Amino acid sequence: MKKLSMVDKGFLLAESREMPMHVGGVSLFTLPDGVDEQAFLHDLAHTIRDTDTLLPPFGDRLRLGRAGLMGNAQWEPDPALDMEYHVRHSALPKPGRYRELFTLVSRLHGTLLERSRPLWEMHLIEGLQNRQFAVYTKTHHAAVDGARSVHISRSMLSPDPNYELEDSPLSLESWRRYKDALQIGQPGLPTEEELRNVADRLKSTFDSSTNLLRALRGFTQAWTGRGGDLVLPHLRVPGSVLNSRVDGARRFVAQSWPFARIHALGKAFGGTFNDAVLGMCAGALRTYLSNHAELPDKGLKAMVPVSLRQKGDVDSGNAVAAISADLSTHIADPAERMRAVMASVQAGKAFYQGMSPKEVELVSMLMQSPSALLMPLGLIPRLPPYNVAISNVPGIRETMYWNGARMDGSYPLSIVTDGMAMNITLVTYGENVDFGIIACRRSLPQVQRIIDYMEDALCELEMAAGFEAGNTSPAGKPKATKRVKAASKKAKTGAKT
Amino acid sequence: MKKLSMVDKGFLLAESREMPMHVGGVSLFTLPDGVDEQAFLHDLAHTIRDTDTLLPPFGDRLRLGRAGLMGNAQWEPDPALDMEYHVRHSALPKPGRYRELFTLVSRLHGTLLERSRPLWEMHLIEGLQNRQFAVYTKTHHAAVDGARSVHISRSMLSPDPNYELEDSPLSLESWRRYKDALQIGQPGLPTEEELRNVADRLKSTFDSSTNLLRALRGFTQAWTGRGGDLVLPHLRVPGSVLNSRVDGARRFVAQSWPFARIHALGKAFGGTFNDAVLGMCAGALRTYLSNHAELPDKGLKAMVPVSLRQKGDVDSGNAVAAISADLSTHIADPAERMRAVMASVQAGKAFYQGMSPKEVELVSMLMQSPSALLMPLGLIPRLPPYNVAISNVPGIRETMYWNGARMDGSYPLSIVTDGMAMNITLVTYGENVDFGIIACRRSLPQVQRIIDYMEDALCELEMAAGFEAGNTSPAGKPKATKRVKAASKKAKTGAKT
Repeated sequence: MKKLSMVDKGFLLAESREMPMHVGGVSLFTLPDGVDEQAFLHDLAHTIRDTDTLLPPFGDRLRLGRAGLMGNAQWEPDPALDMEYHVRHSALPKPGRYRELFTLVSRLHGTLLERSRPLWEMHLIEGLQNRQFAVYTKTHHAAVDGARSVHISRSMLSPDPNYELEDSPLSLESWRRYKDALQIGQPGLPTEEELRNVADRLKSTFDSSTNLLRALRGFTQAWTGRGGDLVLPHLRVPGSVLNSRVDGARRFVAQSWPFARIHALGKAFGGTFNDAVLGMCAGALRTYLSNHAELPDKGLKAMVPVSLRQKGDVDSGNAVAAISADLSTHIADPAERMRAVMASVQAGKAFYQGMSPKEVELVSMLMQSPSALLMPLGLIPRLPPYNVAISNVPGIRETMYWNGARMDGSYPLSIVTDGMAMNITLVTYGENVDFGIIACRRSLPQVQRIIDYMEDALCELEMAAGFEAGNTSPAGKPKATKRVKAASKKAKTGAKT
Repeated sequence: MKKLSMVDKGFLLAESREMPMHVGGVSLFTLPDGVDEQAFLHDLAHTIRDTDTLLPPFGDRLRLGRAGLMGNAQWEPDPALDMEYHVRHSALPKPGRYRELFTLVSRLHGTLLERSRPLWEMHLIEGLQNRQFAVYTKTHHAAVDGARSVHISRSMLSPDPNYELEDSPLSLESWRRYKDALQIGQPGLPTEEELRNVADRLKSTFDSSTNLLRALRGFTQAWTGRGGDLVLPHLRVPGSVLNSRVDGARRFVAQSWPFARIHALGKAFGGTFNDAVLGMCAGALRTYLSNHAELPDKGLKAMVPVSLRQKGDVDSGNAVAAISADLSTHIADPAERMRAVMASVQAGKAFYQGMSPKEVELVSMLMQSPSALLMPLGLIPRLPPYNVAISNVPGIRETMYWNGARMDGSYPLSIVTDGMAMNITLVTYGENVDFGIIACRRSLPQVQRIIDYMEDALCELEMAAGFEAGNTSPAGKPKATKRVKAASKKAKTGAKT
């Protein structure tokens, strides 16, 4: 029986009806030609359910001692595992647009997983238009972390449209096949020297008097389940509308944009794909907050991952660092706002100069952790605060298939907590970037409009860069011009508030 | 702002992820001829959502002070009432049988209501076969008790197939119209003399040393929200499989039988409709427990409502008393079992002899209350224990319509708690009796089969009474004979265990 790490337990302890601590994803597929939807989905459900060798933790439930989560907690096989409970059929009411899908997924993401069973659910959703179907999965963060969850999703897919599932995609057989092909190693702990470097850096930058080295050692051990201890504090709740208390109801929206279009925009400003994503989000958040008369005087801060690789630098590999970027949402002019965002990203990167990839990883993990898990480090009041998380999950560039069904998009659903009422996560897939936005339905009313505001912001920036708006899109959306007009009107309105 | 009574607070305090304290119902309707399902359901949802004068408590949310539920708790208007959140569209996956409906309703009934919003949801469910649709409602027991909930459901319906909804069925206007037609009075408290009589009776019967009079006074006042106090104990958890700990997942099944068929069976045994219902349930529970090798040596006890009215007696009106009936599930012979059930019902009725209707009502309420709410009376270990509740909700004998859609059946979903893993509730409607059975999915696996076992038990009893099985049914089910054969085989098997 596997012991839970203190970080795993932290996610369970921090959970409430208002703050479920599961992560999810919704993927869109197109049925193979000629197959019947009902038969295909029933066969798929049957294949998924039909295994005696489930990959951990899919067959395991929590086993707590007398002290509950404060004591010894382990994963144990569920003696009455009920695969019908975990793998479910659902359907959309007519007319079966994405709107109906988002409504259903918002509801499903807003309910707690059942603690006496393995902490996951998978929903096969029928009733979409154009021969599409959707799959929504939800897994507790205590059971599967983000990286493993990405690997598990991928292990189900194949680049071969004719590949038929042999075993349940949740079986050990399927996982071993994937792992052999990929050769994933065990993640290593940072060395003592790396811990020391990070402690020194954090101490001098954030002026902390804590014994950071000892705290970091405990933290990394706890994270990987090798002992250590974490204590949970009350969560801090800052003042802006994005940082209010949340209730348990969620609103989810998703949208894809062509990678090339966003990348070209970044390049036109002398920046990166990532800079352009931040520009889009900054513009959209400005419009949303202006429309609700909630735009702060100062720019919103976003916790974002940035690549540290520079031209000719091979040592730092693909190190991705978490930085707090200033979205400069108080600036009305799109180009000026974009340049301010880029400058703040540059400043954020400077902090990491001279760190090893392992050190970068550790610091980034600290900065992105729910504040509840960071308390033992004594850094909470000193780490850079932020209003919203914009996370980038590395994706697949090939078109993938699941039992012959083409995957058309894959949209992440992350966690919303008190003080963080919105989460934007994006994943690159094929030629697109798929955005998934989850928010508290009460604190952020009509947040589904953010998707339209992102398109508006993108068009605005393209105009500012001298592009014909939307023209870099391979799809060449015809409505782009109309949208830009609407966007310019809004920008003027926004400037007045 | 209305204050919550201590009993209302009790339901909130006793609630957990594993034991949601909401009650629900699912009703089946047939679309009016010629209308389009999608348009009809969208119009219906629009009408329900469209009101500025919502009937309390549908627009009210909980407001707690610093002491939480242990302190002052009130209902206050939700400042950001979101009717789209409460009134929802859902759909069934194909082929849209009752099986798919029960699966969806089981899931919906197994999730907690959101405490920061008014404590109810209504789901309009499309995708059923034969031009039917379903409506599932769920309401917290703290917000609406059983009787009010029945009235609210009825206030939406009309015996006139051509009656079109004028206002939202959840509006004050609609409620006033219904109340005027019905003339519902405020329920009165029992008099001091009635309290004294009940206290004396309970004291002598259950040998209690508590000051019952004072406790009862407090209890009835708390129940009606006029003060008083209740303390919640840990719940007792007896040993049988029906009385184990529950988790949060539910299984729901429902079925209708012709009232005349069950009534005729009761009469053939010299008993009542209610006796025949108990006979059906006793046989079904025996089969279910035998099949799972869990049949106890002694008969299961059921808490059931019985009518006390005797021929020529008009004073006691429609007094319905709760008694603990011995289901005699250890007896293999159907007729012998039926006679034992009837004898225990007679013995149970004797307890109420000479009580006024108000006294009967008070004692019955006590006996049916969740044990958590009874602790202050000091009677818990003394009140008759029971394994399962079989509740009878008084229904409507006329065929009813909702905005022109004919109601085909209406099935209750009650509460399942630790120690009470199954609840059987029935309601008479039109020419039928509609049974709704809700159970813990883990403690009672495959409990959906109980519906088949009830039909089997009914056929067995009909054979024992010398009927041609199923022949009293107006529908004249053709499969009845086949079922009886299966049932007899099972009865033999059952006798061996």
